[in-house]
Amino acid sequence: MALAGEFDIIARIFAPLAKESGALGLKDDAAVLTVTDDHQLVVTCDTLVSGIHFLSDDPPASIGYKALAVNLSDLTAKGAHGYAYTLSLALPRDTQMDWLEAFAVGLAEVQDLTGISLIGGDTTATTGPLTITITALGLVQHEAAITRLGAKPGDRLYVGGTIGDSCLGLRLLKDPSLAKIWGLSEEDVIYLTECYRRPPVGTVEALLVRNFAKAQIDVSDGLAADIEKLCAVSHVGAEIEAGRVPFSAAARKALEAAPDLLPDLLSAGDDYVPVIAVSESSADLFESEVEEQGVDFAQLGTVTAADGIRVLDERGNELTLKNKGFSHF
Amino acid sequence: MALAGEFDIIARIFAPLAKESGALGLKDDAAVLTVTDDHQLVVTCDTLVSGIHFLSDDPPASIGYKALAVNLSDLTAKGAHGYAYTLSLALPRDTQMDWLEAFAVGLAEVQDLTGISLIGGDTTATTGPLTITITALGLVQHEAAITRLGAKPGDRLYVGGTIGDSCLGLRLLKDPSLAKIWGLSEEDVIYLTECYRRPPVGTVEALLVRNFAKAQIDVSDGLAADIEKLCAVSHVGAEIEAGRVPFSAAARKALEAAPDLLPDLLSAGDDYVPVIAVSESSADLFESEVEEQGVDFAQLGTVTAADGIRVLDERGNELTLKNKGFSHF
Repeated sequence: MALAGEFDIIARIFAPLAKESGALGLKDDAAVLTVTDDHQLVVTCDTLVSGIHFLSDDPPASIGYKALAVNLSDLTAKGAHGYAYTLSLALPRDTQMDWLEAFAVGLAEVQDLTGISLIGGDTTATTGPLTITITALGLVQHEAAITRLGAKPGDRLYVGGTIGDSCLGLRLLKDPSLAKIWGLSEEDVIYLTECYRRPPVGTVEALLVRNFAKAQIDVSDGLAADIEKLCAVSHVGAEIEAGRVPFSAAARKALEAAPDLLPDLLSAGDDYVPVIAVSESSADLFESEVEEQGVDFAQLGTVTAADGIRVLDERGNELTLKNKGFSHF
Repeated sequence: MALAGEFDIIARIFAPLAKESGALGLKDDAAVLTVTDDHQLVVTCDTLVSGIHFLSDDPPASIGYKALAVNLSDLTAKGAHGYAYTLSLALPRDTQMDWLEAFAVGLAEVQDLTGISLIGGDTTATTGPLTITITALGLVQHEAAITRLGAKPGDRLYVGGTIGDSCLGLRLLKDPSLAKIWGLSEEDVIYLTECYRRPPVGTVEALLVRNFAKAQIDVSDGLAADIEKLCAVSHVGAEIEAGRVPFSAAARKALEAAPDLLPDLLSAGDDYVPVIAVSESSADLFESEVEEQGVDFAQLGTVTAADGIRVLDERGNELTLKNKGFSHF
């Protein structure tokens, strides 16, 4: 079915996602929300452009999932939980109603996992590629938000999830013949492409981040580049041991077949997992909590007094990363 | 100068606009804001696409101004004042740094007028037209937000500003020869094109809306269409007297030369002024407040029990509007 008017799109596709009463059923120009004194509001914004942040033929449900999940990962990294979001869609004129319906299914999946609710937005036509902007609001207990600032020399660096899966998934989508070269099974390929299309939303990790992290960053532009940013704001550096970076079983297979992939995986980005600095004195308690909760946090290095970051291979030699991370221009 | 990387753009162009401390200097993935118990948060979102919502050769400062002002007008219509906003830019690769600098000047103008502050956003490249999405957060005293719902038969309808200037301004930009046909001076033309480029932000109006309106809508899709929406949610109708619709001196000149313009001006949209329903019993007090504060609110009709809206000309005959308002598709 071809696209109906904006009101029809809102009523049919998006109003069912507006679970928060302050959304006023999306029948108004604005939402009205109540934030109680014991919480602060965390606000983040991400834009995804077709052909740049997702493939134009990705399943629409996974595009909806990803657009919302990448925002949730920013909230998680701050120790906040998802509350409400606005959705802006600039749609090519040939967008079909069933595409939008499937897109909304992906949004609903993340809503169900995290409790976040659609509260408003805007839908316009565009002559360019499909462009999705989500501004997400999260809640965190007063003064408990973890910012990027605060890492000190001696702190341990942990990453909350595996690295490089999304990068491998994208390459496999672009060139399916790589599966054979990398010795991957069909299940491995599905696992890795799903990592590209459905990044983690990390609701459990948020609590651990809030309770233990002194500083945090969400890995979106590349592990090495993002750790460098985390350190730069606090005028410290870091030493990362490549051998301790957590990889999925599928990624380990690919790395075994093609060891040259390592620097790429460390700088590709799109991982959407938190990296946190934990003080040495609370590291033991943190690690036992991690084990108890069955969450994936792995120590991959330490904060140093020297500027800049060094990534060491298993023999202690410094790895050279051509590109430290994804650049938008 | 060609475009630098995203960090340079943020540091040079946007960090100076982040006046709110919770913006963390735009050095983080998210902002952390405190909303006190006595206020509620009003959230609105608007997307502007080059070639659709503004002309690609509009001055960049006016594009920045408009992108933020259209959001402020939604907050004003709710009785809220501007607090903070996120800015998403999808930029064509040939965007120049000096274009962005001028764009930021327009944002700064609206910030200075309203006190709103940039707190975050995202900057990406696009193969399509420049696309700007702003999500604006406003504050309103607890339970004082005015929604679209609540008009009752007998309520008076007021509009907080002039109608049709923006429509005339756009037509003049597309076809400068109309100035002569409409008998407009050079000043008139500048006035009307500026109305198109710099819609009102209505900070004074917000207070009157909050104190007197039972229901409100912001005129963006067309006066007639938006009044119809305002009435539809409350299952009422309206009678509008075209002769009472406020027009600027320049618009009145154009209407005198080309009376056929009237239906277009009533349905063109892009006016960004509030229409409010005020109960008959408080109308006198409202009008004396309006006079005292020197604000432009004009009564243009009344809410009726019948469904639908009727627009009457000066002889009491019903005007037929081909298009009741702007449609996005």
